[in-house]
Amino acid sequence: MPSEFSLTHRVQFCETDMAGVAHFANYFRWMEEVEHAFFRSLGLNIVMTYEGAQLSWPRVSASCEYQGSLRFEDEVELRLSLTRVGNKSLAYDIRFLKGAQPVALGKITAVCVMVDAGEFRAVSIPPAIREKFRNSGLFAIEA
Amino acid sequence: MPSEFSLTHRVQFCETDMAGVAHFANYFRWMEEVEHAFFRSLGLNIVMTYEGAQLSWPRVSASCEYQGSLRFEDEVELRLSLTRVGNKSLAYDIRFLKGAQPVALGKITAVCVMVDAGEFRAVSIPPAIREKFRNSGLFAIEA
Amino acid sequence: MPSEFSLTHRVQFCETDMAGVAHFANYFRWMEEVEHAFFRSLGLNIVMTYEGAQLSWPRVSASCEYQGSLRFEDEVELRLSLTRVGNKSLAYDIRFLKGAQPVALGKITAVCVMVDAGEFRAVSIPPAIREKFRNSGLFAIEA
Amino acid sequence: MPSEFSLTHRVQFCETDMAGVAHFANYFRWMEEVEHAFFRSLGLNIVMTYEGAQLSWPRVSASCEYQGSLRFEDEVELRLSLTRVGNKSLAYDIRFLKGAQPVALGKITAVCVMVDAGEFRAVSIPPAIREKFRNSGLFAIEA
Repeated sequence: MPSEFSLTHRVQFCETDMAGVAHFANYFRWMEEVEHAFFRSLGLNIVMTYEGAQLSWPRVSASCEYQGSLRFEDEVELRLSLTRVGNKSLAYDIRFLKGAQPVALGKITAVCVMVDAGEFRAVSIPPAIREKFRNSGLFAIEA
Repeated sequence: MPSEFSLTHRVQFCETDMAGVAHFANYFRWMEEVEHAFFRSLGLNIVMTYEGAQLSWPRVSASCEYQGSLRFEDEVELRLSLTRVGNKSLAYDIRFLKGAQPVALGKITAVCVMVDAGEFRAVSIPPAIREKFRNSGLFAIEA
Repeated sequence: MPSEFSLTHRVQFCETDMAGVAHFANYFRWMEEVEHAFFRSLGLNIVMTYEGAQLSWPRVSASCEYQGSLRFEDEVELRLSLTRVGNKSLAYDIRFLKGAQPVALGKITAVCVMVDAGEFRAVSIPPAIREKFRNSGLFAIEA
Repeated sequence: MPSEFSLTHRVQFCETDMAGVAHFANYFRWMEEVEHAFFRSLGLNIVMTYEGAQLSWPRVSASCEYQGSLRFEDEVELRLSLTRVGNKSLAYDIRFLKGAQPVALGKITAVCVMVDAGEFRAVSIPPAIREKFRNSGLFAIEA
């Protein structure tokens, strides 16, 4: 049974739209919010220097299936699980819960890149960082 | 050969992030920007009153595959095609182009709902509206 | 000595821009975040029904003086004080602190309105709500 | 009579909030949108390299007085005038118009900085850039 890394976000007024619910694009911001909190929990940073090189994690794909809606001041729990740690990429599932009720299911695939003069080049995830994901207690199938 | 509805968006400074590129969540806002412009081109509005009822189009799913990146002041062309007009739902593909270079491919499925006291109830797309999509010149497989 | 209502916000990645710092427009979102938390602390909601009417608090003015900058993952403390409770309006100061270091000073004036068919009409702040502000322990000069 | 630099922005769905109007913090993004278009019109960029140094224009202050509200799909005209070109800073007024109707008045003061290892240091506006502002046809009192 995979464990999950969890964060709670309260829906802000500026995140609602004229339909009275949280705007769908914000769900992608919140996915990132829990991802970055997960990185912090491992002592990592989404934009870090590693052996002199700047590493970053741009997205290859992102998706969300919406099963409900969220309103102003709702507290939504974001539960992240690592579904894959590849050679150069990471994949997450993020479940959105309002209490016990599923609200959405998000997926992100991010690739490890070295940033050089503003350009991105995909690189193998450094072993020391890979080890942190492996030891995170979150389920991760090696690839 | 399906035709496409097209809109150009210039990447704003506030849409960039510290990695120096447009933040991935903004791509979902831009998908909506071209969708709403498409609605306007048909004389429709994403939040409209139809025979006394308020109609809206919340998202069932949204996804984006990122093939490149965009920087401040880049002009990105958003090309929308209708891939499906269902009984209660619409599906779009949105291609992101920077000049001739593909930057991303987005997909949105939206469902037609009646808004009643703040609650959403899925309804069949009204025939007069469905007719507009059919006559839009954009490819649409009936379902 | 006026007391203050305080909230801590962590700067998110999507709140940074290509200059590597939090984008200046976000400071206005955070001002609202602490304002709404203050309302919640009094059992109030920024969009509430009061004696059958819908009340809201649109802004008459908003300003911010920037004394420093904030970076990704910085924790900024937002300290709100009520500087004026008028007949129809409220004024706040919001101090932004990073540790002991002042980062910004924001000001918002909001007016109490009744929302009727989507239109706003300024109204006197209802006595029961005014009483809550008066008893909030935050400094408030009557007008 | 000062002339103005003008841009039209259409209010997007994601820029509205549950009160049905454009969220007040977005006005600050739009001020920047017209400012950056003004820079482009002079052949300048808000983040530029000048004689080997990276220049940027962080904000010292920003304010907005709201005289009306804007709704989804409204077209708002943003009229920028330079009110001051100082030694190290620029000040703008931005008038927001919906047709002939004033909607808001914004003000921004930005300071010219050199970016060095992520740190900002205020510098005199380079003469060649100052000359462009002076010749822009927009009113500018020297200081």
